[in-house]
Amino acid sequence: MGMPAPAHIGMALNEVDTPALIIDLDSYEGNLRRMADAAKASGMRLRPHGKTHKSPIIGRHQIERGAVGLCCQKVTEAEVFVAAGIDDILVSNEVVGAAKLERLARLARTARIGVCADNIENIRDIALAAERADARLSVIVEIDIGGRRCGVPPGESALRLATTIAQSNVLQFGGLQAYHGAAQHMRTHAERADAIARAAAQTYETVALLEREGLPCVTIGGAGTGTFELESTSGVLNEIQPGSYIFMDADYARNRNAAGDAFDTFAFALFVYTTIMSRTDDERAVVDAGHKAAAVDSGMSVPFNRPGLEYQRPSDEHGVLVCGSAGRLPELGEKILLVPGHCDPTVNLHDWYVGVRGLDGGTPRVEAIWPITARGALF
Amino acid sequence: MGMPAPAHIGMALNEVDTPALIIDLDSYEGNLRRMADAAKASGMRLRPHGKTHKSPIIGRHQIERGAVGLCCQKVTEAEVFVAAGIDDILVSNEVVGAAKLERLARLARTARIGVCADNIENIRDIALAAERADARLSVIVEIDIGGRRCGVPPGESALRLATTIAQSNVLQFGGLQAYHGAAQHMRTHAERADAIARAAAQTYETVALLEREGLPCVTIGGAGTGTFELESTSGVLNEIQPGSYIFMDADYARNRNAAGDAFDTFAFALFVYTTIMSRTDDERAVVDAGHKAAAVDSGMSVPFNRPGLEYQRPSDEHGVLVCGSAGRLPELGEKILLVPGHCDPTVNLHDWYVGVRGLDGGTPRVEAIWPITARGALF
Repeated sequence: MGMPAPAHIGMALNEVDTPALIIDLDSYEGNLRRMADAAKASGMRLRPHGKTHKSPIIGRHQIERGAVGLCCQKVTEAEVFVAAGIDDILVSNEVVGAAKLERLARLARTARIGVCADNIENIRDIALAAERADARLSVIVEIDIGGRRCGVPPGESALRLATTIAQSNVLQFGGLQAYHGAAQHMRTHAERADAIARAAAQTYETVALLEREGLPCVTIGGAGTGTFELESTSGVLNEIQPGSYIFMDADYARNRNAAGDAFDTFAFALFVYTTIMSRTDDERAVVDAGHKAAAVDSGMSVPFNRPGLEYQRPSDEHGVLVCGSAGRLPELGEKILLVPGHCDPTVNLHDWYVGVRGLDGGTPRVEAIWPITARGALF
Repeated sequence: MGMPAPAHIGMALNEVDTPALIIDLDSYEGNLRRMADAAKASGMRLRPHGKTHKSPIIGRHQIERGAVGLCCQKVTEAEVFVAAGIDDILVSNEVVGAAKLERLARLARTARIGVCADNIENIRDIALAAERADARLSVIVEIDIGGRRCGVPPGESALRLATTIAQSNVLQFGGLQAYHGAAQHMRTHAERADAIARAAAQTYETVALLEREGLPCVTIGGAGTGTFELESTSGVLNEIQPGSYIFMDADYARNRNAAGDAFDTFAFALFVYTTIMSRTDDERAVVDAGHKAAAVDSGMSVPFNRPGLEYQRPSDEHGVLVCGSAGRLPELGEKILLVPGHCDPTVNLHDWYVGVRGLDGGTPRVEAIWPITARGALF
């Protein structure tokens, strides 16, 4: 039957039912602008990650501001974006198995589709699927530059894969994927700078090796919200692929910038709105947002602009607020905003964004209701 | 557009696309039967929790085997069950706010609806909503018997609420909700037995107090998969409300029974099926199931029937398998089953159950595809 939206346009924020996923539209637009400006200033192509927002509406906003297309992680995500008319998608991930590759190749008949690979057999399967669909696919070799997840080692292994791709009639060698996921959340600027410098050196050597062998890289991509400034000045990448910058989250706010202050290049723009549903004493206030409303894999949600309040002991449908002596424990029925610990998996729990204008003063009102169209796009 | 199902009926398991949420139908039916038999043997009413499965199809299976109705935690969950014809629902949770109460009261025009309360103002709001909808609601007083979440203290506080409910023309005093969530996951039998004994004593005293005041409890409910055997013999509760027993999970399997062995009253019946999508060395195999496919709030997923294999370092769309010397690291493209750490929030990430028969031998085949109709029912 489809889940009902928790709000309608024109409502005051405090009438929105909870839990609800709120976008502060002012902060969101500021974040969009800051990243677009940064990419332009550094001469980088910007291909934001659709895995964060799963929304063709937000993807359009990014493309209108200069993004060259979107990344996604799953074929079913790509299907949602292509169906909405977004026609340049990189699946920045390995796609393994005949069923997935058949779907992917079908998309490539109507959109420009790239995919990552780190295995020769898989590249042959991609070519087979492209042939059967009478489609052309761009294949990018993923190298492991420190994340210890997917990707072949830089150097000769990457060359072997690139050569295999280039020999195919239906595949185009698209370049290198050099994403260092683990570096995004290293807390100090020095740690991140060190990790990205080493990653950039390995990537540079691989690019040079490929070029010597007549395999120039159209795309040398990677980077996320935590490190894009480093990759943008490394002189190696030509495409950055950040996702979380549009929303920020409590985990990214625990990163420190070069001056040692909290990483605040982007503003908090995503919140889980929640109601105090039980308040039987002065020790705790129970809210109606638990594991099914806000992801805790990267730490707890943080009450927004409520000093002294702490969110603890989440269970499936509940969380507990406690309060230091400095703050005020909210009353039954009060609604508060939580900054989620981790934005991507939190978005994936909701069916609707509720876009609000005027959160920084006055009576905030609902201005937009956007479906999270690719929520649950798992395969 | 709605997410496509990862399988169709008749498929062999290894053709199912991944990640997918698999039910082993044989184990599931055994679990259904074991709980129905246990409730019958102990003379307890069984009202299983729909928050676990979010599926009217599974709810029907439970009712066909003797359950008196279902519990759920959210009004939008209740809407899904009532729309599917399940006509006896207890929202085993506080429902706060006019919008939610209006929806709840509307449901009570066509189904028997109960709701928990732990606040006098909230009870007045429930009555107001019932009056406006020209409906009757059963209200159950929740007492805090050790979970330190919702609920008033046992004794006089509960009496005050019960009296307020009984005085209303549109509300029925339904009894007591005495659920001890924290006890479910205490690891030793002795800890659980101690917690439930203390909870039962407090509940018993409150029931007796209410009876003396002319307020008999129709329902004295609570209990979960980890403690229902204790509550069933405590002589205080008359209704048990377990959820996870149908599926089990890795967290419940960490509980010990009275003999000190792993809690195995129920069989693992729920799995996340996942493909090895990257295998660049002999140290790790990367699977396509991360935070968006399996919840890790209560610990990691565990590879099923794959001794030596361990699931580690989940990120949004990836997990890493490592292998001790005893086991075998799977190859690229292989598919394996994971027992999720925590079943309820894992179910809530998927749109479809893929029911499989024959997992214990031969060629397992897909026999059922069930929508997770109340997935994402948040408010």
